[in-house]
Amino acid sequence: MRNNPLSQLMNPKSIAIVGAGNNPSKMGTLHGLSIVKGGYLGKFYPIHPREEKVLGHQAYRAVADLPEVPDLAMLIVPAEQAIKLLAEFGQLGTKHAIVVTAGFRETGEEGRLKEEQLKEVAASYGMRFLGPNCIGILNSEILLNTTVMPGSGKQGKLGMVSQSGTYVTQTLPYLKQKGIHFSKAISVGNEADIDLVDALEFLGQDEQTKAIAIYLEGVSDGRRFIEVAQKITPRKPVIVQYVGGSAAGARAGMSHTGSMAGPDFLYEGILKQAGIIQVQMVEELYSYGWTLAAQPPLRGKRIGIVTNSGGPGTAIANACEHGKLDVPAFSPKLQQQLREHILPHASSANPVDLTYHLDAKVLTAVIPEIIMQSGEADGVIVHGGMSHGFMKELYPHVRELLGNVTLEQFLSNFDADFQKTVSLPWEYQIPLVASSFFGREDDYTANYLDYGIPVFDSPEKAARALATLLRYKEIRERKPLSRSELPAVAPQAQAIIAAAVARQQKTLTEYESKQLLAAYGIPVTGDRLALSEEAAVAAALAVGFPVVLKGSAADVAHKTEKGLVHLGLTSAEEVRLAYRAVRKEAGAEIPVLVAEMLPRGRELLVGMTRFPAFGPCVMLGLGGVFAEALRDITFRAAPLGEAEAEEMLQDLRAKAIFEEFRGMPAVDRAALLKLLVTLGQLALLHPEIAEIDINPVMINGSQPVAVDALVVLA
Amino acid sequence: MRNNPLSQLMNPKSIAIVGAGNNPSKMGTLHGLSIVKGGYLGKFYPIHPREEKVLGHQAYRAVADLPEVPDLAMLIVPAEQAIKLLAEFGQLGTKHAIVVTAGFRETGEEGRLKEEQLKEVAASYGMRFLGPNCIGILNSEILLNTTVMPGSGKQGKLGMVSQSGTYVTQTLPYLKQKGIHFSKAISVGNEADIDLVDALEFLGQDEQTKAIAIYLEGVSDGRRFIEVAQKITPRKPVIVQYVGGSAAGARAGMSHTGSMAGPDFLYEGILKQAGIIQVQMVEELYSYGWTLAAQPPLRGKRIGIVTNSGGPGTAIANACEHGKLDVPAFSPKLQQQLREHILPHASSANPVDLTYHLDAKVLTAVIPEIIMQSGEADGVIVHGGMSHGFMKELYPHVRELLGNVTLEQFLSNFDADFQKTVSLPWEYQIPLVASSFFGREDDYTANYLDYGIPVFDSPEKAARALATLLRYKEIRERKPLSRSELPAVAPQAQAIIAAAVARQQKTLTEYESKQLLAAYGIPVTGDRLALSEEAAVAAALAVGFPVVLKGSAADVAHKTEKGLVHLGLTSAEEVRLAYRAVRKEAGAEIPVLVAEMLPRGRELLVGMTRFPAFGPCVMLGLGGVFAEALRDITFRAAPLGEAEAEEMLQDLRAKAIFEEFRGMPAVDRAALLKLLVTLGQLALLHPEIAEIDINPVMINGSQPVAVDALVVLA
Repeated sequence: MRNNPLSQLMNPKSIAIVGAGNNPSKMGTLHGLSIVKGGYLGKFYPIHPREEKVLGHQAYRAVADLPEVPDLAMLIVPAEQAIKLLAEFGQLGTKHAIVVTAGFRETGEEGRLKEEQLKEVAASYGMRFLGPNCIGILNSEILLNTTVMPGSGKQGKLGMVSQSGTYVTQTLPYLKQKGIHFSKAISVGNEADIDLVDALEFLGQDEQTKAIAIYLEGVSDGRRFIEVAQKITPRKPVIVQYVGGSAAGARAGMSHTGSMAGPDFLYEGILKQAGIIQVQMVEELYSYGWTLAAQPPLRGKRIGIVTNSGGPGTAIANACEHGKLDVPAFSPKLQQQLREHILPHASSANPVDLTYHLDAKVLTAVIPEIIMQSGEADGVIVHGGMSHGFMKELYPHVRELLGNVTLEQFLSNFDADFQKTVSLPWEYQIPLVASSFFGREDDYTANYLDYGIPVFDSPEKAARALATLLRYKEIRERKPLSRSELPAVAPQAQAIIAAAVARQQKTLTEYESKQLLAAYGIPVTGDRLALSEEAAVAAALAVGFPVVLKGSAADVAHKTEKGLVHLGLTSAEEVRLAYRAVRKEAGAEIPVLVAEMLPRGRELLVGMTRFPAFGPCVMLGLGGVFAEALRDITFRAAPLGEAEAEEMLQDLRAKAIFEEFRGMPAVDRAALLKLLVTLGQLALLHPEIAEIDINPVMINGSQPVAVDALVVLA
Repeated sequence: MRNNPLSQLMNPKSIAIVGAGNNPSKMGTLHGLSIVKGGYLGKFYPIHPREEKVLGHQAYRAVADLPEVPDLAMLIVPAEQAIKLLAEFGQLGTKHAIVVTAGFRETGEEGRLKEEQLKEVAASYGMRFLGPNCIGILNSEILLNTTVMPGSGKQGKLGMVSQSGTYVTQTLPYLKQKGIHFSKAISVGNEADIDLVDALEFLGQDEQTKAIAIYLEGVSDGRRFIEVAQKITPRKPVIVQYVGGSAAGARAGMSHTGSMAGPDFLYEGILKQAGIIQVQMVEELYSYGWTLAAQPPLRGKRIGIVTNSGGPGTAIANACEHGKLDVPAFSPKLQQQLREHILPHASSANPVDLTYHLDAKVLTAVIPEIIMQSGEADGVIVHGGMSHGFMKELYPHVRELLGNVTLEQFLSNFDADFQKTVSLPWEYQIPLVASSFFGREDDYTANYLDYGIPVFDSPEKAARALATLLRYKEIRERKPLSRSELPAVAPQAQAIIAAAVARQQKTLTEYESKQLLAAYGIPVTGDRLALSEEAAVAAALAVGFPVVLKGSAADVAHKTEKGLVHLGLTSAEEVRLAYRAVRKEAGAEIPVLVAEMLPRGRELLVGMTRFPAFGPCVMLGLGGVFAEALRDITFRAAPLGEAEAEEMLQDLRAKAIFEEFRGMPAVDRAALLKLLVTLGQLALLHPEIAEIDINPVMINGSQPVAVDALVVLA
């Protein structure tokens, strides 16, 4: 793994820790205990001012006293001390550190200055560090856990990057209950040095990690985030919960780690562009992330459902379809095979509903295996596998009837063989998830979980988990994201901008804006500027009737409302009248734009806006009268390739308009994609442009044409 | 409670059961055990062919041998026998029964006939019954549980109606874990007699029941469902999971109980009309239903968040805003009060983030109480209250350091006083919900749950629970749903339909359709029919230029594509040319419609469709070029009042167009509402009409006008 600072930081042969002692009510001690008790086989060097031994290991008075240069320094001490200690480790030759200490950038200006000092110290010694204000790391491969909570001790498959320490420490018992185990987990804290993208890149290259989950409050280098993710997501799924999109979310996140949030609509587009699956709850992040990591990939979208109860089966089928999965009725042949194992009135169609009182083995092994063998399903969901959990509930009621049998004796009657049940997904390379209203108190749930088969406590979640696998299938099969190189700056465009800047314009006029777009090959309406009535008529004749006349000057907004726009002029006389009217309204000798008038039809909004952390982003939206009311829009960061532009079209609710639509031909996709790609390139070539608004792009026949445009200068 | 069959069925003084014995592997025995062991104090009469005693109670050989007429008969026997036994109970004088037996309508034609027999028997003896194919009932008020699973024995507040037996029996252990307790629960099975709406009505009138949850696969009498729900929902919340909306969901539901499903878009509108909150997962149904039942109502939408950890606090804040709740920054005064109890760098703004290591009492009692006292929050969410659960995890790591203390000794150090924590919502009448990654193994979670404070295992769910309370606040504050009486049938309308029927038309012509609408006062464009060129010119002069000419005949669809529509005619000469063109295209002497041409602007789709179970339903949608691509539509069942029509406007994503919009005046709402209400009335008055499609209704200035219309006859 080349140059990623975490490849060494996560695999230290020795760790020195400052802040751990023998008092278990101190946070530092808890961090130390997790390392010492978790099974880590490397060296552990506690530094302590008084104690001889800390957590059973020889303690050292000072950094300088250490018997060797530790690979990793871990600091859980007040902020001032952390800076000083980092310098001491740097001097000693330690190259990696985790700074748990809080009280830096997240607390205001004073803290920000301390964080700068921390960074300077690290840089001066060539050190790389995680934090400050983080909880540490887990690396299950070497049984290393530096957080405050005991880990599961199991080798996991899910990699985790979190901008909240909670999600790699407080939740460990919860995850253990759910059978979810991290391969590696990284709390990135304030990201003063090593950041979220480094962590993502590291997990992308880590072989043990089969899927990556990210708890995200905001990114600081959006472009790098996208590029790193795009390299990973064709071969390894990434799933994200983003919580910075609302005002309160952004405020809370800011106060928490000081990260940079942005609106939901932006992040939605960015995450799609990156090939990342977005979820809304941490439960989904973990459980669907785990399904992605632990189960075989979905090869198609046909789901077989096996249930012992109608309601959950129906709910699963309904949730599958909401998630774009199919629940096809099984073939007569398959149904006949299934019927040999189920009651006469049970349903074999799919869902296969065994009804209540059958051997759980038929439900969890026999029927699922027949379905997997049939080739009629790409994924299977089993609801209701249960035994001991149910029996424990019944026991108080039936004990007397059974001659006061003990609970243990009673349960032993229901011991099951789980071998087939838990081996199915790997035997057939078909994903299997389960749903049950029992937790680990039931032996089916426990066995499923222990063998990496997710069990959900609401049937619909099982369907959504497989729908997440389907999302990833689509990402895996994305068109290649090749991007053409940036073209050269067009001299004409440069000249237009330079002239406008010289005139101190804040915006380009419509004419200038469209000329600028045209300089990069974006199709615009045929326009001419006229400074006299005669010139206007001549322009109209050259452009071809019908024409539009518009008063044209920089900084004239709302032209329509001001009476400066005259549509549908079909004769020289009408042009003359319109010209006079514009001049009268404008009250100034402003130039008049004579433009080609396209027939009304499909209208789009296309634009470019610069966002903090992401730079120029291209927007595509539905235009027309209802555009504002509908806000059917989508964003991508520039540069973007044609495949990414194509995905923007798919994002629109109104995407049917790009096809043949109400007698109109299909839109020339190649032309529209080129327009979007070019707009992004243009923004990258001209940092002097703050914003571009092309409203509308009309579809003329099949061709997109920029009919009005506004370029705002920075 | 007048006439509701469940008021007696749910409160029997004596129960006879057939199908229970002393073999605990039989379902009937499990049903019997739940009654006998659950604390029910009424009489229990088992009927058994051989046993002297069943479950410790004297058994009887036959129905005729019973010592008294039981209030309730419960049958868990094969279908044929069930019919026979029901008759015997009827003869004896028993008026209520629960038929658990399956194998009726849900299994096909043969079963359907058996179900008819069952109904006939019941009717002949004036009996009312639940089922067949149901799991029974729970009435916690009298500790009666007739299902197969032991109940919690606690008096609950949530009423449940389910079309799947699973959700009132298999889930009981799950619900006990989550601290959710039913007041009463009813498995309605095939609804051969007592149906889902009866159960809803019963729970609506039941004082113990504070909120009602429904698992819904489909309704058979949609109109009665709406009316009963509308009486309940202004004073008691109702929450529904509907699973019949997809093809697979409908198929599974059908095979399961044979209930009548319909598309999601229809049920979405119907449930809103009924004042019912819709959720997508059974977990939400239970947990948000329980929040509605157990917590005080929300009086405003300001939420205070208290957390010991940044990530969950941020996620909660974000989810609150997504749920239309506010997370306002607290006033400086309140923040000052809060700061006295928190660390210097902790955040007091809202979320109040205490950061990691504080006394849980400050988190769960001190800070929430200050917030409740302040008047600055209408609801409070607390994340991270924990003690023993966390300590049990830490124990293996710290035991040695603490001199090998026992777990019990260790935990006793962290015993907490929960009195304030769990009494807050009732003391201040402000809802409080909690979020924790620990389950009942933690004493905070356990105490919260035992005192009716919901605890969610993903922080976002806590926010969504309060958002559900906000939805109910809006329903409680709905405008009154008064409905005007149906008008008399308009003779003109009757004549138009009669004439068309006589001519064997399948549809009315555009002219006839608009005349029919106009007969009920729906505004239509000024139109005239012309049968000659001269008449067309005269009509155009009367209607006023510009006009539209359209070839007009029944059964001519796609007029535009066939060249039968000529728009924007501004002179007599243009009218003549258009008239000739239409006649030429039509190839027949069809009448020509000369219609007023309105300026293009806001366009709507309005229609009427009849749906199984619901009858005539009124549709409102966004019109215009993009209508098909956007499908921004909403439905309500007729009759509907103006308040219900007003809510349809609110459903549209494009609802901003009803306000002042791009220089156009606000739509005359009263006129538009009247149009929708009238369309529903018209459908009720004319069952001969199958479908009405008004496309478009254009907004002329502020006035809605039907510009084109098609009436399809039944």
